[in-house]
Formats: sequence, C-alpha cells, structure tokens
Amino acid sequence: MKAVILSAGMGTRLKSEKPKVLHTILGKPMLWYVLQTVKNSGIEDIGVVVGYGAEEVKKALEDETVSFYYQKNPRGGTADAVISSADMWRSYEGYVLVINGDAPLVRSSTLKNMQRYISMVEEYEGVKLSALVLTSFLPDPTDYGRVVKDSEGNVIKIVEEKEASFEEKKINEVNGGVYIFYAPHLLECVFSVKPSNSGELYLTEIFNLMYQKGYKTRTFMAQDPTEILGVNTRWDLAVAENVIRLRILQQWAEKGNTIHQPESVWIEPDVSLEGDVEIHPDVMLIGKTKIGKNCVIGKGSIIENSLIEEGVVIEPYSVIRNSKVLKKARIGPFAHIRDQSTVGEESQIGNFVEVKNSTIEKDVKAKHLAYIGDAYIGSSSNIGAGVVFANFDGKRKHQTRVGSNAFIGSNSLLIAPLKVGDFAFVAGGSVVNKDVPEGYLAISRPALKLLKDKGREKLT
Amino acid sequence: MKAVILSAGMGTRLKSEKPKVLHTILGKPMLWYVLQTVKNSGIEDIGVVVGYGAEEVKKALEDETVSFYYQKNPRGGTADAVISSADMWRSYEGYVLVINGDAPLVRSSTLKNMQRYISMVEEYEGVKLSALVLTSFLPDPTDYGRVVKDSEGNVIKIVEEKEASFEEKKINEVNGGVYIFYAPHLLECVFSVKPSNSGELYLTEIFNLMYQKGYKTRTFMAQDPTEILGVNTRWDLAVAENVIRLRILQQWAEKGNTIHQPESVWIEPDVSLEGDVEIHPDVMLIGKTKIGKNCVIGKGSIIENSLIEEGVVIEPYSVIRNSKVLKKARIGPFAHIRDQSTVGEESQIGNFVEVKNSTIEKDVKAKHLAYIGDAYIGSSSNIGAGVVFANFDGKRKHQTRVGSNAFIGSNSLLIAPLKVGDFAFVAGGSVVNKDVPEGYLAISRPALKLLKDKGREKLT
Amino acid sequence: MKAVILSAGMGTRLKSEKPKVLHTILGKPMLWYVLQTVKNSGIEDIGVVVGYGAEEVKKALEDETVSFYYQKNPRGGTADAVISSADMWRSYEGYVLVINGDAPLVRSSTLKNMQRYISMVEEYEGVKLSALVLTSFLPDPTDYGRVVKDSEGNVIKIVEEKEASFEEKKINEVNGGVYIFYAPHLLECVFSVKPSNSGELYLTEIFNLMYQKGYKTRTFMAQDPTEILGVNTRWDLAVAENVIRLRILQQWAEKGNTIHQPESVWIEPDVSLEGDVEIHPDVMLIGKTKIGKNCVIGKGSIIENSLIEEGVVIEPYSVIRNSKVLKKARIGPFAHIRDQSTVGEESQIGNFVEVKNSTIEKDVKAKHLAYIGDAYIGSSSNIGAGVVFANFDGKRKHQTRVGSNAFIGSNSLLIAPLKVGDFAFVAGGSVVNKDVPEGYLAISRPALKLLKDKGREKLT
Repeated sequence: MKAVILSAGMGTRLKSEKPKVLHTILGKPMLWYVLQTVKNSGIEDIGVVVGYGAEEVKKALEDETVSFYYQKNPRGGTADAVISSADMWRSYEGYVLVINGDAPLVRSSTLKNMQRYISMVEEYEGVKLSALVLTSFLPDPTDYGRVVKDSEGNVIKIVEEKEASFEEKKINEVNGGVYIFYAPHLLECVFSVKPSNSGELYLTEIFNLMYQKGYKTRTFMAQDPTEILGVNTRWDLAVAENVIRLRILQQWAEKGNTIHQPESVWIEPDVSLEGDVEIHPDVMLIGKTKIGKNCVIGKGSIIENSLIEEGVVIEPYSVIRNSKVLKKARIGPFAHIRDQSTVGEESQIGNFVEVKNSTIEKDVKAKHLAYIGDAYIGSSSNIGAGVVFANFDGKRKHQTRVGSNAFIGSNSLLIAPLKVGDFAFVAGGSVVNKDVPEGYLAISRPALKLLKDKGREKLT
Repeated sequence: MKAVILSAGMGTRLKSEKPKVLHTILGKPMLWYVLQTVKNSGIEDIGVVVGYGAEEVKKALEDETVSFYYQKNPRGGTADAVISSADMWRSYEGYVLVINGDAPLVRSSTLKNMQRYISMVEEYEGVKLSALVLTSFLPDPTDYGRVVKDSEGNVIKIVEEKEASFEEKKINEVNGGVYIFYAPHLLECVFSVKPSNSGELYLTEIFNLMYQKGYKTRTFMAQDPTEILGVNTRWDLAVAENVIRLRILQQWAEKGNTIHQPESVWIEPDVSLEGDVEIHPDVMLIGKTKIGKNCVIGKGSIIENSLIEEGVVIEPYSVIRNSKVLKKARIGPFAHIRDQSTVGEESQIGNFVEVKNSTIEKDVKAKHLAYIGDAYIGSSSNIGAGVVFANFDGKRKHQTRVGSNAFIGSNSLLIAPLKVGDFAFVAGGSVVNKDVPEGYLAISRPALKLLKDKGREKLT
Repeated sequence: MKAVILSAGMGTRLKSEKPKVLHTILGKPMLWYVLQTVKNSGIEDIGVVVGYGAEEVKKALEDETVSFYYQKNPRGGTADAVISSADMWRSYEGYVLVINGDAPLVRSSTLKNMQRYISMVEEYEGVKLSALVLTSFLPDPTDYGRVVKDSEGNVIKIVEEKEASFEEKKINEVNGGVYIFYAPHLLECVFSVKPSNSGELYLTEIFNLMYQKGYKTRTFMAQDPTEILGVNTRWDLAVAENVIRLRILQQWAEKGNTIHQPESVWIEPDVSLEGDVEIHPDVMLIGKTKIGKNCVIGKGSIIENSLIEEGVVIEPYSVIRNSKVLKKARIGPFAHIRDQSTVGEESQIGNFVEVKNSTIEKDVKAKHLAYIGDAYIGSSSNIGAGVVFANFDGKRKHQTRVGSNAFIGSNSLLIAPLKVGDFAFVAGGSVVNKDVPEGYLAISRPALKLLKDKGREKLT
C-alpha cells in the first residue's frame, strides 16, 4: 500500500500566508498528524503533493522519509493533485491511499481497518474493490458531499452540496475525504475527470466514472463523525486542536495520571508522563517535556522542553523552559526557570524568583524575589529575598559561583564575575564585588544614622 | 418599525439589588446586547420601559438615543409594561417590535428576518399579520410557554407551563418572548388583557384576544434554540455569557486569527484583532483593546483598554491595563504594565517587572524584578534586576527621567525627582539621589569587608 | 433503613496503589461524596466494607460514625462484599441500601426517592418489594449490565455485557449499581449466589434468585444518566469531578453569585460564598474558604483555607493560603499571602509581594515587589518597593514589628529582630539593623560619587 497526502492547498479561508497544512495543532503542523496517522496505519511509501508554499511544506517534513510531488496549477483541484503524483503509482499494481493534509482527525486505526476491509471483501466475497471511501452519517449533512449508492452498496457518485438535487440533499452519508484506490483503476479513470464549472478537477468524480465501468466501490464508516472534520477555517482549527488535545489527555489519564479539568489542560504530543502525575487545571506541557512519577504540577504552570524528575512539586503559575528539575525539588508559585538551568534534588525555588542559565545543586533554597542568572550554586546554600546575581556589566555577561552551605543575605548584590566560597556568609544588603573565600563573612554596610523627629517631620 | 424593550423587572431570582438588565455579559449590561440587536436589525425608533432601578437603567443608556417609558406597577406584568409605552405607538400605523431586555441571545439577523417575513406574507399571501412571535422547538419544553396553533398556523393562544393541559404540555413549540405587533391591533387588544391569578397582565394573552377577533398571527422559528434563552438566574447569566463569548471568538477566528482553547478565552465586544493574531489559552481581552497583526498573546495574559501594536509578543501571565505597547516589543512573563504607560518598539519588559505611568522608548530592556513608576526612559537604556524607581517620598509622587543608552545597575534605587543623562552608568546597588549628568558614572558603595571564619561561625 | 457502602476494591484500572475510593474529587475522597449522599438521604446506620487498603480507608473516615466490615477475598465480588457485612443486617427486618463507594454522582434526592418509592408501592399497591435497583436508559448501553424485566416490571435478571445475548444487548435500561434490599430476602438469597467464570460472586445474581422465588422487585430511574457513572479509570474520575464541580457552581450561581466561565472555576465542597460575589475565570477556591459579600475574585486567583471578608477585591493571579483578608482590602495582581497572615481592612498588597506569617493592620500599603515575613505592621504604614523583611539569619527566624504611620523606603532591608516605631521613616536603600524609635528617621547611605565620562567609557 502506498499513500498520497494532498498538501498543495493555500487554504484561502484560513486567511493566512502560511500554507494551510502548516497551521499548527498543539505545536505541530496539521500535516504532521496526517503523516503520523498514515505511518501508524502501516504504510511506508508515502508521497506528499505540494504546491502553494511548497518549499515551506518540504522544510517542515525534512526529517521524514517521504517523496514530494509538485502540483503546478494551484486551482487544479484534487484530481489534478492526484495526477501530479502519478509517477508514484502509475505502474503499481496495489492500492493507493489518498488523504488530505488538512484532515488531522482521521485515526490510524480507521486507516488500518479500511485496508483490512479491502482484504476481507476480496477474501470472503471474492470482490476486488476499485475504491473505498471513508464516510460518516451526519444528522445535518449540509455543506458535505453526499454519497449516492446503489442497492449493493456501490458508490454511484459523490455530489457536492451545491450540485445536489433535493432528494440527494436528504442523504446523511457524507464523504470523509479519505480514499483507497486500486492504482490501475485509478490510473484508468483519473485522467477522464472533467473540469467542474470552476475549472477544477474533483477527485470525487472518479466514483461515477468507476461506476460506469462497472467497477466495485464501497463506503467505510468512520468510528465517529469528528474523524472526518476537515480544517477550512481557524475555527475548525480550534475545534480540531480540542479534539486531538482531549484524545491525548484521555490516554494519559487512562495510563494512570490524574488530570483535573482536562478541558483546560494542554499536553503536546511529544510530552511524556511517567505515571501517578497529578496535573492541576490550566497546565501547559510543551515540546519534549518529561514528567516523572508522583509529580504534582500546580495550576497554570507552563513547562516546555524540560525534564521534571520524580516527586517534584510545581506550585501554581510557574514557568519552566529548557531546564531540568531534579527529584523532589519544589518550585513556585510564580517561579521562572529557563535557559538550560538545573534545579537540584530537594531544592526550593520560590515566588518571584527567576533562574536563568544556572546550575543549582541539591537542597538549595531561594524562596523569595530573586534573580539568579549565569550562576552555579553549591548544595545547601541559601539565597535570601531580593538577591540579584548581576551578570551583565553593560557589555558582557559573566558567571558567579557560590559554594555549598553558603548564605547570601537578603537584598545583597553579587557582581559577576565572582566566587563565593563554601560556608561563606554575605550579610544582608551587601554589594559583593570581590571573591569571598570559604568560611568568610562579607559585609558592605554604611552606618545607620537615627535622627530624632526627622521621620515624623517627613510624614506629617 | 418601532421597538419597545421591556426593562422594568427586578429579576428576583438573580438575588441582586442591581436591576436585572444591568447584570453584565462580557463587561456590558445585558440590555446593551438587546439594544444593539434591535438597532442592527434596522430599527431606529426605540423605547425602553423602565421601572425597578429606573434611574440606573437610564444612566446605563445615557449615550444612546432611546426614549424611556416608566412602568409604575413593578408587578404589573408584560402587558402592563407595553401599555406603559403606549404613547410611543398609540397613533402609529406600523409595526412594533416588543422584546425583553433579558434576552441578550436573540440575533439581529433573526429580527431582520422576522420583519422581512411580515412583508413577504403581505406581499405574497395578501395577508396583513397582526402579530408574529419568535418560537423554537425544544426537545424538553418544560417551564416554557407553549404555542397552540390552528391548522393555518395562526396562534390560538400561548399557555404557561402551570396552566397548560396534559395535551398542551406535549407541545414542543415554545414562546421565545420576542413579538412584532401591528400597532393598531395591539392597541385594540392590549387593554383587554385580564389579570392572571397573580394579578399580572401577561402580554401573551393578546394572542388569544387577536385570535378571537379573527386577526392573523404567525410564529417564526429562531435560528437555534439558544437564541430564546432568557436570563432569570445567575446560572442563566453564565450560560448566556458563554454563548455570546463563543460567538465573538468564532467571528475572530474566521477573520483569520488563531485562538487556542477558545472555550477558555475571553474577548469583550469592543476589542479588535487586526488579523493573524495568535491567542493562547486563558487570555482575557477587555474593554477597548486593539491587537495588531502578528501579535502573540501568551497564556493567561490580561489586556484591558490597551493598544498592542503589530508583532508584539506577550509572554504568559502578563497584565497590561490602559497602556500602549509598540511594535515588536516583548512583554513578560509575569509583567505588569499599567496607568497610561507606553512601552516602545522592540523594548523588552520581563518577569516580575511593574511599569506604572511611565514612557519607555524603543529598544529598552528591563527584564527582571523591577518597579518603574512615573518615569521616562530613553531609547536603548538598560534597567537591571531589582531596580526601583522610588517615586513616592511619603507625601508626594515625583518623576524620574533616564536618558538614552543609560545603564541602571541591579538593585540600585533611583530617588525621584531625578534626572539621569544619556550614556550614564549607575553602578549596581547605588542609591541615586542626585542628578547624573550625561556620560557620568554614579556609584554609592561602602567598602566590602571580608572577615575570616566569621561566615562559618554564623552558619555552624 | 441501613446502608452498606462497598469500598473494598483496588481499582486496577486506576493504576494506583491508593485504594480506589480514596482518589479525590475536588479535594475529597470519592467515598466522602457517597457517604454524604447516603447520610443526606436520611440513613444513619451505615456500614462500610473495606478490603484493599483497609487501614487507609478507615483512616479517611475516622471522623465519621460508620461501622467497618472486612472483606477477606479481594476478588470475592460484590455479593461476597455484601456477605462480609452480614452481621450488620442479618437479623434486621427492614431495608438495606447497597451502594458502591466509586459512585460519587448518585444524588441524595435519588436515594430518598427510592426509599419513598418502596413505601408507596407498599401503601398503594399492597406489594412489599424485595429489591429496588437504580437504572438509567442509555442511548449506547455498551459495557453496562442490562436489566431484563417481565411484563409487570419485575427484574428477571441483570446480565453483564459479555454474557448478554444478541437480544439482551439491545436493552437500553442499564444497572446503576445502587440497590435497596429487604434484609430477610437478601439474607435468604445472597448465600445462594454462584461464582461467575472468574470466581467472583456478583450481587446482580440476586435478582434472578429473587425472581425464581417469586419475590417482587422493581427498577427506579435515575434523574439523569450522569448519576450512574461509576469511576473505573482516571478519565472517569476527571469526568465525575467535572460533573460535581458544575453542580456546586450552579448552586452558588443560583444563590446569587456571579460566576464567569463556570467550566473554568474550581470551588470545593466546604467553601462558602456569602452572596453577590463575582468570580472571574480560572479561580480556584480550596478547603474551608469563606468569601464575604460583594467580593471580587480576579481571574486565576487561588484561595485556600482562608477568610475573605466582604468587599475585598482580589486582583488576578493572587494566591492566598491559610490567611485572612479583612474588609475592603485590595490584593494583587500577583500577590502571595500565606501561613496565617492577616491583611487588615482597606489595606493594599500589590504585585510581586509575598506576605508570610504576618499581621498587617488596616490601611497599610505594600504595593510592589516586597517580602514581608514574620512581621507585624501597624495601621497606615507604607512599605516601599523592593523592601525585604530579613527574618532569617542563617539559623533562626526572627520577628519584626513596624508601628503605625511608618514609612519604609524602597529597597530597604529590615533585619529582624527589629522594632520600628510609629511615624518612623526609613530612607530608601537603608539597611536597618537597630530599632528605630517613634518619629525617627533612619538612614544608612554611602555618599554618591559622580565620575565624569566614566559612565560612557563603560558603555561604549
């Protein structure tokens, strides 16, 4: 079995310069989902028909082993798109799956079942099907192509809404836009498709051509009607994203993770949860994020391309990007960890603390309002409230290294490049611009003057 | 065509002292939606019947050209409310639309179609309708008034749930509470309405009075059942808000903006999106906010009465109120910009930074934990982490002016009133209480003392 | 009436070591909801059958007056579980309600109505029912036990999906898993239940045994199908949590509170709202939180075990835990109040401010980036931006006491233990390590040096 994915369209109704199939769902292009579905159904030889924005589409698939075919006429229609790929299947004696790149909701199990159905009809009924089309029954079929069948179940024709007769409009079985064709018969018929009034060649015309030749075709019903939703507007895109999102969430829940208010949670396809993770509402897990066992991810937290080891507690509204949080650490609320940072085991990063491009060893506490940038902090050190690691001198970024068991008093400023030794103590409010050796106390503090009555004078 | 909006009710079941029609949906009173719908259907001569909280209701509509009518008896009923407005249409030979102020979901297209239907019946059937009532078919019609019709489609009567017979309760066509009456016939009948058991005069009684006189009336089916939802409880209010919210979101999506998890997004009616805007989950756009092309609005951000120019990226959980963010600026996460502030082109305001009543020119960076209040900051300046613009001396607020290309070191304090010149450099941790001329270095830093072993002593 | 709650199961499909009935919904174990439902239906004598994780389950109910029965065989089945509780009802001449601990959605009104139905059948029909089973009609009954009845409405048998014949599978009336048995007949039949193929004793077998004896049984239809949803996977758990959540939200709305986007709001069962509260999207109210009249709770705020008095405004993204906020105070956005803190009347705690274990009197302002820990602050004092209460010296926590009408200048550091008197003024940037008497000005500030051209040199 080969497959052709039609991805040449511009998607006018999306109102975008970006090619239609590159609009994303949970961070991945729509086309990615279609390609995965096709691959997961067991098909390896896959062609992608490109046209509008061809180079962009090819680039988006550069890591995939697919072949590309170019449709020259942007208004050529679906049959023209299939013709563009004819080199792929012209002399192939098997079946070709044709699917649109804007149909991200079709399930791979459905594609597998369609393939199996063809084999079964051949085996048990002795009938070699020329085509099989995915369909669904819709209570309101408006705007969909209606499938007209004969008494044996062969497709007589597929009629578009605007060309349907009064009787045909009453048909509830609609075209799902996924086809499997027997390649020799496809070849025989596809070049006979006549242009529509708008000049396009519709692939659906093939069914009537096949019917006239006496070829056998059938319909195959989708598991549920959402499968056949095509994405034509950005509202469709939002709906499709919701459907895929809830499918992913249901899978993670059924694997043994607790997800509160799943309709509010965003988990992208490359994320993994190791089990017994508790996810609170409004959480967003992005990219290649991995969450260890027994983690709690607090409400509204955003974790992107990060590793969260087991037993970590993320308090609400924390943002973690491209970083690692090691076992049993505690983050947030309102913490921001980014740029290849690591937070060590059982360390605590608290509210209004930013950690940027820093390595924090285990059992460190930085619990309140602080900026830790370009730093290394040894184990069991304590970073006070209001501490800033001044890593930028107006021209360049510099590093700070704090040893283990050190104490950086509140509101103090560490001016990089700087080294603070183990068991060093920086008194609160100090500006540290020289290295502090191990065990030293560093203090820069002007004398406090107390002036009688002057306070009241300023205030009254 | 004239219109009367009934807005005299208290709305007991809302359990509020506020008049029912002033309860808000997406920041606007319910009544505002009804009024827009009526106006958008092409009707200009609009009366509003007020009663409970009359002055508040009138105040809420003070910018609208409507006339007010006062219903004296708060328990007079809908017919009594219409009678209160009789001066408006007593000698009018046309049609009068009557709609409740608590029916915010009726569409203007429906009102237009009702008007057109009356004309068409007159033109094609030669029948002048005396009344047309909006209806819907509900699978479960419980609690709604049932519409009893004769074989020609004339309304015989409208019966309330509690007065409906066993047979009448089976009727699925229910009263939508929107009527168009031929004024002379309305006048003829409305004064004949007899009080119900509760002493109220129900407007629905008119249909039976008209039927007895042989006047022709018809029903007109709503586009979908949500249209006829009246708001009687705060739960209804929440449902109605959701319906209107999703209508607005769908419109913006179809105009070419990407909206993720639309059911989580709040966009008020006066907001505008210029296209190709990407809106992440949980975003709230309030008041007269305008978002330029190609902006990205990060998860959970709240933007109120603000202008966001094209290409701006708002990172998650940023709050922007009554401010402007110019082209390609980058805000957040966790930034708070308010009180007539402006953030210049390509400037960056980062995490845990508050900007209040300040003008920030282009290419400025204030990326970490800072308070910038009552300030002007020239282009290409850098504001370090932990910097505070001390604008309040215990009695008064003062201004700070920072030039361009200046560098304000981390944890330093700028005590207003103050001027810092172009290319000035404030060393980290300084307290600046005197103006810093152009190109100067300002530093206030006590000597750092390093005391051997004293650190370890304090820690062990 | 007595009741037996079956809570011995492990819940394999939840993939958890925690006993199934202890998985939580809105912060309470599933079993808690079932127990409340049973109690609210008027039943006082309640037995709980435990097995897997028995001690944990007993501990979760330690404050409840229930008796426990132990099921030895973890795979014994539901009839075996009921047998385990036989001591409770063996010599009881009344009715016994049997319900699963994983059925949190059954309503107490339904249980009441089931009890009433039994009485009514006895009174009006003269029939003493031996059993009554809760059922529902499902459009798709797949996976549910089908209820087969005779023409009089007696249950002939209940067949599980896998044992149902083709005809039985078409039955839409399904077993809801809630039963009321006449104890003497239960006793007579339950020991006759034969093991299934898997060796389990199914309680549903009793209906066929009773039918064979000529005992009368009936079905009772649930108010809506959601009631009979059992929780078998974590996805079911999420669905059940959503159902209960929306029930709670609808109740609070109907009592006169405005809830925006209710599907995004989380309110736990022990929370109370005093009326006219406005709750914005994404709010989470946890534990024993109480919200006073006319409060506004801003988007995304999290309030746990806290008292919020009337007229308080919580701006977006504030987190308040185990604290009190008194009348008309104003909190947030991005404020964090925790650990037994109190914020006084009309006080303002603003953005990026953390208040921990502190008492703040009335009319205090701490509006920007500050850490207030282990402190007392007298009325009408002002805490500047960047102020830190340094409560930790590396070994111990200490207290700070600030009087009333005091002014703590920005970026200053208060080193505890410390006392600052009334009308004291701490100049910005000071490090305060000695008590400041009433009315005094405290200042520690090194001289500011201004060095010509040195700034420009560092920057260019």
